[in-house]
Amino acid sequence: MQMYSGHINKLIEELAALPGIGEKSAQRLAFHLINMPEQKVKRLTDTITNAKANVRYCKECFTLTDEDVCPICANKNRDHETIMVVETTRDLSAYEKTGKYEGVYHVLHGAISPMLGIGPGDIKLKELIVRLENDVKEVIVATNSSLEGETTAMYISKLIKPTGVKVTRIASGVPVGGDLEYIDEVTLLRALEGRIEL
Amino acid sequence: MQMYSGHINKLIEELAALPGIGEKSAQRLAFHLINMPEQKVKRLTDTITNAKANVRYCKECFTLTDEDVCPICANKNRDHETIMVVETTRDLSAYEKTGKYEGVYHVLHGAISPMLGIGPGDIKLKELIVRLENDVKEVIVATNSSLEGETTAMYISKLIKPTGVKVTRIASGVPVGGDLEYIDEVTLLRALEGRIEL
Repeated sequence: MQMYSGHINKLIEELAALPGIGEKSAQRLAFHLINMPEQKVKRLTDTITNAKANVRYCKECFTLTDEDVCPICANKNRDHETIMVVETTRDLSAYEKTGKYEGVYHVLHGAISPMLGIGPGDIKLKELIVRLENDVKEVIVATNSSLEGETTAMYISKLIKPTGVKVTRIASGVPVGGDLEYIDEVTLLRALEGRIEL
Repeated sequence: MQMYSGHINKLIEELAALPGIGEKSAQRLAFHLINMPEQKVKRLTDTITNAKANVRYCKECFTLTDEDVCPICANKNRDHETIMVVETTRDLSAYEKTGKYEGVYHVLHGAISPMLGIGPGDIKLKELIVRLENDVKEVIVATNSSLEGETTAMYISKLIKPTGVKVTRIASGVPVGGDLEYIDEVTLLRALEGRIEL
């Protein structure tokens, strides 16, 4: 609908293409941006550009970070013999917020999904296996309890068991079909405590 | 909460400061932006920058537009003797979508609000009075039916009546407390048809 001028329409279109932003929110946002002081707009666009340019994968756990090695992997007080495998950096953050997990992480950046054509080679699985060459005592699989998350957990279990490393799965305190990042900290901790060996 | 790296946190903070975007949506958006191809990110930031730099007020009706005079004011087929007064460009767009209004608009960019310290001098009211020096037969006041919108309507009515120009108010088909931009087109048209002289 060509209701606004070219620049405004283009801006609304770009904003509406972002996840969770509908047509109406995009309009609100667009006018908010146009009415914002110029230096604030510049700060926002610079922040986006800088984040895109400077954020990279941690060389060890593959979380998104500003450094070559993320602060968690660089922390010598963490238990580097326990690796929790999560699907996304947001899931890592969800467990990190509980403040009780002492180990390190491994971020897969996805889950195996035959439906979406995502195979084991499309997520950071090889990289996980490489890490097992160091001293690792336990791999805690904390993928989501969705179909894809469960499939990925089974796959990881089959892959790692022959190496003799203990593989556990967080307990199903996490509601089936739920997304880790939206679950309260108590439930997340209960799921961690109740983890069972795969 | 310092859960993510500096650049990511800064981005989440900037995004969460935008209207209608909460902490969780800001996180989702931030990771989406970081994972977007670089050229798409550039297109988005350029679009924001260009919109901010090029969008200005129409010299006649003060709507936001790319030109000195907006396409509605520049259109000689529109009835320039009827001016509909709205609070925002989005409200203008809401009426424009009905496709039935033939007159032109005047965008106030706000409403009188003693609570927020917004007086008649803070919105485009002087500019409306200046326009009445041309041939104008009717001013239709289509401010929101909120306290501020009604106050503004009364103020405009008192201001214009002495000049002899007819002043009307859209009918209260618009639900009290409602925001024009969220109302369906049929209700908007009914409100236009049922307008009463102030």
